[in-house]
Amino acid sequence: MGHETWVRVENLEKGLCGKSRHVFFRGVATVVTKLFNIVEPDVAVFGKKDYQQWRIIQTMVRDLDFGIKVIGSEIVREHDGLAMCSGNVKLSPENRQKALSISPALSRTKVEAEKGQVNCRELINCAIQTINEAGGRVDYAEIVEQESLEPVETIKTPVVFCVAAWFGKVRLVDNTEIDV
Amino acid sequence: MGHETWVRVENLEKGLCGKSRHVFFRGVATVVTKLFNIVEPDVAVFGKKDYQQWRIIQTMVRDLDFGIKVIGSEIVREHDGLAMCSGNVKLSPENRQKALSISPALSRTKVEAEKGQVNCRELINCAIQTINEAGGRVDYAEIVEQESLEPVETIKTPVVFCVAAWFGKVRLVDNTEIDV
Repeated sequence: MGHETWVRVENLEKGLCGKSRHVFFRGVATVVTKLFNIVEPDVAVFGKKDYQQWRIIQTMVRDLDFGIKVIGSEIVREHDGLAMCSGNVKLSPENRQKALSISPALSRTKVEAEKGQVNCRELINCAIQTINEAGGRVDYAEIVEQESLEPVETIKTPVVFCVAAWFGKVRLVDNTEIDV
Repeated sequence: MGHETWVRVENLEKGLCGKSRHVFFRGVATVVTKLFNIVEPDVAVFGKKDYQQWRIIQTMVRDLDFGIKVIGSEIVREHDGLAMCSGNVKLSPENRQKALSISPALSRTKVEAEKGQVNCRELINCAIQTINEAGGRVDYAEIVEQESLEPVETIKTPVVFCVAAWFGKVRLVDNTEIDV
């Protein structure tokens, strides 16, 4: 008899990366449960670059009463702004150059929102345009509530702007929290 | 944000009691995971009266790497053969009398199988008739493989004969392992 037990965080797993990767977060939650049961850690640190993954683990730990403190670690960037990721080594020099468009697009969105632009559609379109013009192909760009990851139309509470984009055959994700 | 994390044992949860109680075992697996994470036991004992529940917990513990030894405890019966269950107190004296038909129906099935009757349909029909004639209403009666809980037509390997039946508004489950 093979493995047949799955841990699912049913709302958080649906949006953002979950839309195109249907069973991905089921796998993440299940394998992290296995890891937690084997290692029995007191503290677990997850990078906020994979924001949805971090929120899923945090919710799973709360819902299943794991006695583990989950810490979200701030995104660490290369000197040129690219968020550190094991997948970066797969980028050709040309695609890496194109991918440098993500970080400033996120920063500008954050600045504009903090200056009072609350219309998400306008903020998002501007960022998509920046990345696409640099030669990327945006998979999704969404402004969502920080805990529920529900999309918002107008920024009223703390949100996070999440982007996934293709550069050649490499898909990168990045995000920035906007605490208005 | 409400609870949204569920543990599912996807094959074992489907048959037997799972057919009429669609989200029941999702709840069992999730709440037992919570209990395990809070109590952190070394050993957990589950009664084999709820055979499907026991197998689900056993599989969950294996698949999710809980460091817990799961023990199946043999069914304990009242002096008159009725399997002990918290629900028994809800039986009227009349329905309790009718419910006494289950245990001999299981025993006879086991004896017949051990004497060489391998045709499950005939064994099952005989047991259903006994319980229904006593005034019960059989919900299901199935002979299934002991680990996978997959129904079998002909007994070749160890099986378990599982029965659920209504007596008035009380639903009882019982079973007997047949190790041929």
